[in-house]
Amino acid sequence: MTSFDVITHVRTELVDITDNVRDAVAQSMVSSGMCFVYVPHTTAGVTVNESYDPDVARDITATLSKLVPHRAGYAHSEGNADAHIKSVLVGCCQPIPVEDGQPVLGQWQGVFLCEFDGPRTRRCQVQVIKAGTD
Amino acid sequence: MTSFDVITHVRTELVDITDNVRDAVAQSMVSSGMCFVYVPHTTAGVTVNESYDPDVARDITATLSKLVPHRAGYAHSEGNADAHIKSVLVGCCQPIPVEDGQPVLGQWQGVFLCEFDGPRTRRCQVQVIKAGTD
Amino acid sequence: MTSFDVITHVRTELVDITDNVRDAVAQSMVSSGMCFVYVPHTTAGVTVNESYDPDVARDITATLSKLVPHRAGYAHSEGNADAHIKSVLVGCCQPIPVEDGQPVLGQWQGVFLCEFDGPRTRRCQVQVIKAGTD
Repeated sequence: MTSFDVITHVRTELVDITDNVRDAVAQSMVSSGMCFVYVPHTTAGVTVNESYDPDVARDITATLSKLVPHRAGYAHSEGNADAHIKSVLVGCCQPIPVEDGQPVLGQWQGVFLCEFDGPRTRRCQVQVIKAGTD
Repeated sequence: MTSFDVITHVRTELVDITDNVRDAVAQSMVSSGMCFVYVPHTTAGVTVNESYDPDVARDITATLSKLVPHRAGYAHSEGNADAHIKSVLVGCCQPIPVEDGQPVLGQWQGVFLCEFDGPRTRRCQVQVIKAGTD
Repeated sequence: MTSFDVITHVRTELVDITDNVRDAVAQSMVSSGMCFVYVPHTTAGVTVNESYDPDVARDITATLSKLVPHRAGYAHSEGNADAHIKSVLVGCCQPIPVEDGQPVLGQWQGVFLCEFDGPRTRRCQVQVIKAGTD
């Protein structure tokens, strides 16, 4: 398993980590299989969505913040309950197929670290597994 | 990795692809492991839920559309920001265990392609990986 | 693949199953790879989030119930449409990396069965797959 760090700059943002994931897959020497991008954090997530128009990432974070507001009488006293809930909704692990030694991403797909309680330094771990036919 | 296409007929719908997934798993010749159903799209998703009563799929799409309305002042100018956000909430990859050469689905579980910006032709990719004990 | 049962006690709750997942991974004898925690149910889910402060789990279930109320004119006649929808939002399968024969969990991360239509006995299945470099 390889890992890399991502420095986030605001409380809530999506950071494009597609190139880091491509590098991790290349380094694994796996030609066909699956890669898994995992954050060992409880107030962040990982997702795949459009990386071409940055407005999409902004709409995603804005809508999540409308659905799960920062302050809403939560029981958790640290002031970041919303970030935990967003992490559950988005998920902390993104599986992506691998073929020809590359992550299989659609034309508009990029991989994003989802920061919900930044700014911080976040760890991303990438595990790559060979397919059954290798 | 194998793939198949799904033709969708309306803007938002869940299409049962359980039989296609069963076929892809059988074709892989993997007896025990995991399969991953992946859509290389940013306005669609994949999920597992009840396939017996079609009202469940309708409740899922209706509730997602209430939470994330089609028009709500999004920044993304293409008019489908809601579909991108729903794709993030549902996810574009569904892992399912495989045993005895079959996807392990509970009694009521089926696999669904989630169309959020149709009608279109969508690609579904299925990667199957052998378990550690194979 | 191994499995274990979880008895839930109320309609909606998160049950910490981290120790069960650790045991299943140890039993698999896989040193480096991925484990997948899967529930073959359509009104439950699996997630990873903070296990230290139980208020976080309470905030997660309370917020999901605010977003997807128990009664809201759903088409599905069994009275548990909300539980199906929550299951889709959270997901029925959680992938977690494995290193040194252990699930790779961050300092605050635990694994939770998410009960949305209890009380019931729920089945959790754990599949473990070796990494490409094994």
